[in-house]
Amino acid sequence: MTSNFAIAIVGATGSVGETLLQILEERDFPISDLHLLASNESAGRTLAYRGRNLRVRAVDGFDFRTVQLVFFAADPSVTLAHADAVRKAGCSLIDVTGALPSDVAPRVVPEVNGALISGEAPFAVTSPSSVAVAVSLVLGALREHVQVRRLVIDAGLAVSSRGREGVSELARQTAELLNGRSVEPRLFDRQMAFNVLAQVDEPDAEGHGRLERRVNADIKALFADEALNVAVSCHQVPVFFGDSLSVTVQASTPVELGKVIAALDAAAGIELVDAGDYPTVIGDAVGQDEVYVGRVRRGIDDPCELSLWIVSDNVRKGAALNAVQLAELLIKHHL
Amino acid sequence: MTSNFAIAIVGATGSVGETLLQILEERDFPISDLHLLASNESAGRTLAYRGRNLRVRAVDGFDFRTVQLVFFAADPSVTLAHADAVRKAGCSLIDVTGALPSDVAPRVVPEVNGALISGEAPFAVTSPSSVAVAVSLVLGALREHVQVRRLVIDAGLAVSSRGREGVSELARQTAELLNGRSVEPRLFDRQMAFNVLAQVDEPDAEGHGRLERRVNADIKALFADEALNVAVSCHQVPVFFGDSLSVTVQASTPVELGKVIAALDAAAGIELVDAGDYPTVIGDAVGQDEVYVGRVRRGIDDPCELSLWIVSDNVRKGAALNAVQLAELLIKHHL
Repeated sequence: MTSNFAIAIVGATGSVGETLLQILEERDFPISDLHLLASNESAGRTLAYRGRNLRVRAVDGFDFRTVQLVFFAADPSVTLAHADAVRKAGCSLIDVTGALPSDVAPRVVPEVNGALISGEAPFAVTSPSSVAVAVSLVLGALREHVQVRRLVIDAGLAVSSRGREGVSELARQTAELLNGRSVEPRLFDRQMAFNVLAQVDEPDAEGHGRLERRVNADIKALFADEALNVAVSCHQVPVFFGDSLSVTVQASTPVELGKVIAALDAAAGIELVDAGDYPTVIGDAVGQDEVYVGRVRRGIDDPCELSLWIVSDNVRKGAALNAVQLAELLIKHHL
Repeated sequence: MTSNFAIAIVGATGSVGETLLQILEERDFPISDLHLLASNESAGRTLAYRGRNLRVRAVDGFDFRTVQLVFFAADPSVTLAHADAVRKAGCSLIDVTGALPSDVAPRVVPEVNGALISGEAPFAVTSPSSVAVAVSLVLGALREHVQVRRLVIDAGLAVSSRGREGVSELARQTAELLNGRSVEPRLFDRQMAFNVLAQVDEPDAEGHGRLERRVNADIKALFADEALNVAVSCHQVPVFFGDSLSVTVQASTPVELGKVIAALDAAAGIELVDAGDYPTVIGDAVGQDEVYVGRVRRGIDDPCELSLWIVSDNVRKGAALNAVQLAELLIKHHL
């Protein structure tokens, strides 16, 4: 029944790109032809797929008419540089970089607003920021029980949100400090080891970072609710992999905790951890498809308040897996 | 003019106790007689004060009639065990452990509600939790401009909040992992290195931890506002010293950012970091008397929302310094 598809991955050598490749293989995605693309510097490397070594080619000059679907997992600027050519080639695209506006490439998490994907190919879809994917999955599962009026998201991001350089920089700084040497920060603007950085990118004139704006817009788009009030603070924590999210919801009516817990327990893609215990990125979320939720509780002062702790693999469910799930949805609609 | 006072420190060998001793010396506190007290196990050790080595004695059996003021900086249970004897001895007390109810020992931050200290000796005063000290200092400075209706505090606590054992456990785990060995957690219930723990103590039946309850009650008491809505989430981060706090305020009127910034800039005990930049515990807060504030911004969706990033030395300003400042206030009232 299923036909096979010619696919390209732009940014194949990055951590999201490599995880994409791995998940396509794991989920047995029907591929006839696979093109791995990257910047000129990374071209020439090889990556393994189903036991074969595939050579990475430069994205510049690639003919998008030879594929039906492209994943963009490099820099937002790379998405922007090629989106027009992709469209003109009649090729569908899934962007994990958030470079395109919502009216061009709507933000979709299959479990939350997958119904948004309709019509005919070519499709253009955005996989939202990892923070928005995790939070919307959880709040989406509660839609029948909790009408969210206001949301405060405090996100502790792992250094892998800065790619492989982030991971090696935290390791280097930690080793230097443990050996009693002083640290000269490179990738981050401060000492990252044993420290929490207040922001993950350059704030704009109003003081909000690019990712904070993106999470805010993602969540409102995913719930198609422009009136929703979403406060977002993103911090960089000395953790290698995974997002650690503290979420406080103000609902319009008192929260019925029993129903909330039952709904989370029943939801696909969510692993609920019992009261008293709690999940962490290490040992729970990292390497897993599920988003983990714990510390589900009502406010001390306000029965309409709900607090949650969410951990998620930022590279996997937060980006690569959601993108592949989007591709699976596109297939259903005759990509 | 000033007379000198006979003083005891219970819990002198702990990190708050040692910092207390250091700050008393730094601030030239008028001491005639200094008794260092601790558990039976720690008795016999010596600590330096003004170039002399003072021997630590057991708190059990100490005659509180020989002093005018006692600092309690051990466990809450130690405060509870001796508070009655202290009162009967006619001795004033400053408790940093939060063991006593507000009607017995009101929570005071001198800059916020120092006026609460009045009447005659003996006094009993509580130095609030380090998180509440830092947040109330900042919001206290804004009292004329921001009427707070709702507050969401997300607190990343350093391992030093668990005393010296917390510090050595993070160091041990980090070294093991960097050497490629697996980690068997001891003090914490999970791997602490390169991980964020969702809670810092055992939650109660409603899911709130003891410290979360304490911060909530502290803040309401400090602003004498029982109607205030305070959501608190405390997490343990792999940082040695200092609290990293993300605070989102919902005010009753649109926030006038210019006035907020001017008020923070002018406030005693607060160091405001310019927009674009931000403070961190390392390099800014740790070892300093000031609480550092940055990332002062209004909500993306709501002009009545104010977000702030606050870092503070949890042992110093958060506990020992505030306690000594309270003692200085008591002196003014003829301790």
